[in-house]
Amino acid sequence: MHGKFIVIEGLEGAGKTTARDVVVTTLQQQGISDIVFTREPGGTPLAEKLRELIKQGMADEPVTDKAELLMLYAARVQLVENVIKPALARGSWVVGDRHDLSSQAYQGGGRGMDTGLMQQLKQSVLGDFAPDMTLYLDVTPEIGLQRARARGELDRIERESLNFFSRTRERYLALAASDARIKTIDATRPVDQVSAAVIRTVQQWLREQQ
Amino acid sequence: MHGKFIVIEGLEGAGKTTARDVVVTTLQQQGISDIVFTREPGGTPLAEKLRELIKQGMADEPVTDKAELLMLYAARVQLVENVIKPALARGSWVVGDRHDLSSQAYQGGGRGMDTGLMQQLKQSVLGDFAPDMTLYLDVTPEIGLQRARARGELDRIERESLNFFSRTRERYLALAASDARIKTIDATRPVDQVSAAVIRTVQQWLREQQ
Repeated sequence: MHGKFIVIEGLEGAGKTTARDVVVTTLQQQGISDIVFTREPGGTPLAEKLRELIKQGMADEPVTDKAELLMLYAARVQLVENVIKPALARGSWVVGDRHDLSSQAYQGGGRGMDTGLMQQLKQSVLGDFAPDMTLYLDVTPEIGLQRARARGELDRIERESLNFFSRTRERYLALAASDARIKTIDATRPVDQVSAAVIRTVQQWLREQQ
Repeated sequence: MHGKFIVIEGLEGAGKTTARDVVVTTLQQQGISDIVFTREPGGTPLAEKLRELIKQGMADEPVTDKAELLMLYAARVQLVENVIKPALARGSWVVGDRHDLSSQAYQGGGRGMDTGLMQQLKQSVLGDFAPDMTLYLDVTPEIGLQRARARGELDRIERESLNFFSRTRERYLALAASDARIKTIDATRPVDQVSAAVIRTVQQWLREQQ
């Protein structure tokens, strides 16, 4: 049987790592044990090198929005072709920390990048390939950044303004509203309530797959 | 006065480095002394890191054609926005070892990549920006590779097959035939004859600019 691809999305501090652990436990309880983890950008040797360049930027050189977007898609095509598709084909499940929806929300929404270029990149790199289900953990930028700051340093992208994250969140919500495969979870609540919602959502979705 | 952007193009072993020196000497003899050199991919700290990834590839990971193309354009947008345009704006001349025509020829011709994606990337990254003149040094792949091999190791792209380089050359020739700003020079001849042709071409073009 072909595996399934589940993605966890959300702003910084939305609780993606906790949700991932909850998803994995829920899958394992249903007897699904062959699970591959990915994170984006990254997940292959080349993609991780690109992640480093994107996250850190260059000391004396502004990273243009377009270069950032192109590096994100270069990393994505490596991950999809070399890791995700082969894993699904051999029957593994894949749980991803971020995928294309992040680019749509951050670069498309947050940075307001040209829709034509974004559509062409998505079509060229992914074609019809898409996650079987995406859990979008919705938080306000204020709550998300507060949690992220409590964890320590913020990277180049995480130091963006609140306005940037507000635009990113709006795009997330708009895209989630237009795609039944994206499940929105209110992640402003305490962690145990969020985890309970994640479990319910995954179990419900698994039942629908049978 | 705004500077001019001159690019030198051609297959491996076409004699681009020698031609660059000849171009610079010719410009200097006309009193043009503020000249910035670029090479692609590369020419900024971030672009040079991308060049390394493109040239070396990864030991255990195939670099997909799409990732290669996206990294090339990420490097190009950094170079154009952070180096070439500012240099031209302050009145410097720019002499480039390769530019967009290389992607059109190698990725478009040699690798046969999707024209839609390539056009979208070019339009998005460059818009109407283009070199004022391109010198395309035309050699057969056989002659070019023979010269390149005599210089030492060939990198990942240079180890491609003769067929790949034949398709690349054909695309170079077709693009040069359709754009008056691209001057084709027969670079199969001995170096002094090629250099003489480069000098004549640059001098003639400079006269036309006045």
